[in-house]
Amino acid sequence: MRLVRLGDAGAERPAVLADDGRLFDLSGVTRDVDGAFLAGGGVARAAAALAVGELPEFDGAGLRVGAPIARPGKVVCIGLNYADHAAESGATPPAEPVVFMKAANTVVGPDDEVLVPRASTRTDYEVELAVVIGATARYLADPARARDVIAGYTISNDVSEREFQLDRGGQWDKGKSCETFNPLGPWLVTADEVADPQDLGLRLWVNGEPRQDGTTKNMIFDVAHVVWYLSQFMVLEPGDLINTGTPAGVALGGTFPYLTAGDVVELEIDGLGRQRQVMGQA
Amino acid sequence: MRLVRLGDAGAERPAVLADDGRLFDLSGVTRDVDGAFLAGGGVARAAAALAVGELPEFDGAGLRVGAPIARPGKVVCIGLNYADHAAESGATPPAEPVVFMKAANTVVGPDDEVLVPRASTRTDYEVELAVVIGATARYLADPARARDVIAGYTISNDVSEREFQLDRGGQWDKGKSCETFNPLGPWLVTADEVADPQDLGLRLWVNGEPRQDGTTKNMIFDVAHVVWYLSQFMVLEPGDLINTGTPAGVALGGTFPYLTAGDVVELEIDGLGRQRQVMGQA
Repeated sequence: MRLVRLGDAGAERPAVLADDGRLFDLSGVTRDVDGAFLAGGGVARAAAALAVGELPEFDGAGLRVGAPIARPGKVVCIGLNYADHAAESGATPPAEPVVFMKAANTVVGPDDEVLVPRASTRTDYEVELAVVIGATARYLADPARARDVIAGYTISNDVSEREFQLDRGGQWDKGKSCETFNPLGPWLVTADEVADPQDLGLRLWVNGEPRQDGTTKNMIFDVAHVVWYLSQFMVLEPGDLINTGTPAGVALGGTFPYLTAGDVVELEIDGLGRQRQVMGQA
Repeated sequence: MRLVRLGDAGAERPAVLADDGRLFDLSGVTRDVDGAFLAGGGVARAAAALAVGELPEFDGAGLRVGAPIARPGKVVCIGLNYADHAAESGATPPAEPVVFMKAANTVVGPDDEVLVPRASTRTDYEVELAVVIGATARYLADPARARDVIAGYTISNDVSEREFQLDRGGQWDKGKSCETFNPLGPWLVTADEVADPQDLGLRLWVNGEPRQDGTTKNMIFDVAHVVWYLSQFMVLEPGDLINTGTPAGVALGGTFPYLTAGDVVELEIDGLGRQRQVMGQA
């Protein structure tokens, strides 16, 4: 099932996007697509309501597309998780996952404006497979248990300011948490509809020119490993978001320019839809 | 005013702790002490209701003390913000604030059990002055504007696993976000009652033995600078928490042992009350 949230920021209406493109209103089933919905069997209830024709159809034309989940409790990110991106960043592939965080209020809709921060000279893009957690994960016994806690998948643009991240005294979070720095969506595709999360092409364009073109086959640590690994260091909760890393082609690699206001960034992952952001200036 | 939250985890009742030690129920004024309460003039409403005798007194005897605010949208931390702690950590004092994050679900009550993570050998303590944000802060013009967005102060124990933080491949967040790693409270002391946040003694004991004994006078970057600085890199929101760094005396410094199950950790900051945690094992 593909879950979407449509409407003004902060007042999105939850809906199901059917295979034939029709939209069905979920607001009779849940107020929002959030941790409580995901943990409480909401996906199954939504599917059942859809199957028996209980969900009213509605016209989403002209409505803004919001992030497909309400604001996460946390946004956890994996760094350098594709060997080609590690190489272009001048880093050796990590022996275990590199973990950092983004502020959860960076999450915006997939087509919302993204702001170049004030004083920024190195604002960069990163297309990433995003994992949405659907059940509490605490010290999972092994990576095979990860599937029990994954609600589904969507697209993240892990926008990054490289000077803030790398040259401003220490930890990466400083360059990862700027306003609007996590476009998310358009859809939450439930895990049952993603046959193999390690076989998805992911692509990004700037002003129509290809910049990133990778596949999740090339992750150093696969999704199951990442979720299991994180659960040894923190408690993952329903509604949490994990950005699983980006393949090569970012501006940091030196071949392409950094983003400036007016640039158009488009992202796509097989089966997960497409994002389009116009860059603005904070 | 001193705001407290009393009761079982997830079901705390908001209250005011009066100067004479009496407790007054705030649940007629607000459901919780959260971002909406702080941003919406809740402190002034609570003070007015208390002044005219509208708040019913209640008996908190035997009730658990919760964190004095609901779960924050984010927990932002400043590293190495006391020169003596930077020195004991083998680091040079930073030229600008070092910023990292803790997962917000690490926040627990001031006297709750703190768990040594599985596979941990270096669980450490850090007494810190915590700032609670009361209004949105985005690109503050200068540090003098910080006071407009600070709701008040409380105590954080920024519990840290040093192997996870420093020796497990990269960023610090991995050693900062373990379950129960942010005891908070006991009180949110509103900013008007803290005459000078840069003149507070802060102390920590383990099993009754003094470990940390510092003063916020020795912060490298003061509270106003930290809040102003962070607002250049992220949007701070009402209910967010900032841990402002710890003075010398942590186990990482090499003089004292790391924590193990059964250890008793006590923390105190002038005017902000006292915490006491018994360490458990995850």
